[in-house]
Amino acid sequence: MDSRVLMAHGSGGLMSQQLVDEVFRSIWSNQYLDAALDGAQMTLPPGKVAMSTDSFVITPIFFPGGDIGKLSICGTVNDLVACGAKPMYMSVGLIVEEGFLLSDLRKIAESMAKTAAEAGIQIVTGDTKVVERGSADGIFINTTGIGVINEGTEYTPQQIKAGDYIIATGNIGDHGLSILAQREGLQFSTPVISDCAPMYQLGEALLGFPGGVRCMRDPTRGGLATVLNELAQQSGLGMLVKEKSIPVSSVVKGACDMLGMDPLYMANEGKMVVVVGPDCIEEIMLKIKTVSNCHNAAIIGQVAEEPAGMVLIETELGAQRILGMLEGEHLPRIC
Amino acid sequence: MDSRVLMAHGSGGLMSQQLVDEVFRSIWSNQYLDAALDGAQMTLPPGKVAMSTDSFVITPIFFPGGDIGKLSICGTVNDLVACGAKPMYMSVGLIVEEGFLLSDLRKIAESMAKTAAEAGIQIVTGDTKVVERGSADGIFINTTGIGVINEGTEYTPQQIKAGDYIIATGNIGDHGLSILAQREGLQFSTPVISDCAPMYQLGEALLGFPGGVRCMRDPTRGGLATVLNELAQQSGLGMLVKEKSIPVSSVVKGACDMLGMDPLYMANEGKMVVVVGPDCIEEIMLKIKTVSNCHNAAIIGQVAEEPAGMVLIETELGAQRILGMLEGEHLPRIC
Repeated sequence: MDSRVLMAHGSGGLMSQQLVDEVFRSIWSNQYLDAALDGAQMTLPPGKVAMSTDSFVITPIFFPGGDIGKLSICGTVNDLVACGAKPMYMSVGLIVEEGFLLSDLRKIAESMAKTAAEAGIQIVTGDTKVVERGSADGIFINTTGIGVINEGTEYTPQQIKAGDYIIATGNIGDHGLSILAQREGLQFSTPVISDCAPMYQLGEALLGFPGGVRCMRDPTRGGLATVLNELAQQSGLGMLVKEKSIPVSSVVKGACDMLGMDPLYMANEGKMVVVVGPDCIEEIMLKIKTVSNCHNAAIIGQVAEEPAGMVLIETELGAQRILGMLEGEHLPRIC
Repeated sequence: MDSRVLMAHGSGGLMSQQLVDEVFRSIWSNQYLDAALDGAQMTLPPGKVAMSTDSFVITPIFFPGGDIGKLSICGTVNDLVACGAKPMYMSVGLIVEEGFLLSDLRKIAESMAKTAAEAGIQIVTGDTKVVERGSADGIFINTTGIGVINEGTEYTPQQIKAGDYIIATGNIGDHGLSILAQREGLQFSTPVISDCAPMYQLGEALLGFPGGVRCMRDPTRGGLATVLNELAQQSGLGMLVKEKSIPVSSVVKGACDMLGMDPLYMANEGKMVVVVGPDCIEEIMLKIKTVSNCHNAAIIGQVAEEPAGMVLIETELGAQRILGMLEGEHLPRIC
């Protein structure tokens, strides 16, 4: 199997049809995709709808714990979950470089199918473009998802109040470090695996607490520190976190120390920051810990009136400093 | 204004936020986008929903009659219209090459805003990735749109019946030839302008004929010939068209003759193939001709039981031949 993608696969003609039929439609098959119309036609349950889009340009495309296909499903599913939505339908837009291995394309499509099935989302429509060798780097994937929001669920920064608790649903920095390690050929005593995972189970678990959960956001590019700053800015409140409460695995901690990097700015692809009201914090923490990839969840801090729009971190040595947004570039093409 | 896109604009941190605020949010501003959440949250009117996605990799990005921004809105709007949907909301995913001119990015964003406003669709959520110089060719844009389908409207190839009429809503081949001419530096006595346009007015005009309109499809990549073949295959019927009835401007005809190309395989970005039942063909033709970019609409042929799944064309000389799908590649990166 060393067939490769040709420019004619992007022509819109016979070879495009063959590629779509043999790779995508055969692997992702469902009633919407099989209809082969200009767009998918679905009936949504009543309620508010969330729509989210992400393009994925990660390099390398296969990495420990995932690949660009799995990641492209997780990224958009997690954004929908962060909106309080049940992920329902998804579109996929592929830009492929001429010469890309068809066997790799099939592997990626299979990985997407598996992750989508796990997350309960259906790939209902798609598009494939091919560009000349040298005009793209292998493959870029856009996924756009829609999901349905239950009545009464409203996860927005405007719901956050002083006194709320800030939860991280698990260890921070694994995705970023695993990509960096693979790129640079770094070896650690314990291998670092990306946390790439769809968070639909967390979303479902929290649906029972519509008022208690104020807001969720997934700390991808820019990491935990950047998400905390976004929430501080958008809520107009202060976020106070304790470094020693933030879950970081010892291998990520050690590697970051050695490399002079900060796990708080590393990308995560299977984690959520959840802000929760004080009334049901204990109940919600118990619930979160029952979710398969959230056993390690921790309360990392609290919301306060001041300093408005800013994040303060209490370091392990007890000092307090401002934790800013990511400035400049960190690791390019991490997702 | 010679500032350029930097890798840090794709970091997810401070410079990403600045780029989004200063370019996209300021130009596309609306309540959904301004909320700056992980996804947009909307309430849809009841009914069936259509979802369609397209990635745009056209080169050159500015061309006579449009640019990649305008095209990216038209392409997805027209796919929604072809589904019988009223275009409502859209996501935009950008992949930008490091070093891209910020002034060009702004021009593209403004062109998108203008076209979206014209077509009555709102850009509600987005994503921007930056890749290193040489890892992409300038800018690639994905748009994904959702629209609402009126009850009773069902435009699918399965609705097509023998005896139906086939309409092309205007001159064929303008987009393809204009891109080719610009790439190759060809000059014609009459300049060839892309037909790139959102077809929402056609969509609205045809809503009054839910049973009469069987199916619509926009002949983009692969051209008119490929769309006719798709409809023949999907309906299991034969499509008989007359070459002399197909509207082609004299400059496109002349240029294609000279270049050895066939306008029937050239891409169009503001045209629709409409299949209509015999009962209201006259009424529908009159209605279509009232739409601003469809004055030149023409009945180009009819549907028959045989040859099942195939397209026959009667040439200007009176001979009949099979009109196949586009084989191999035609013009790469036409959209």
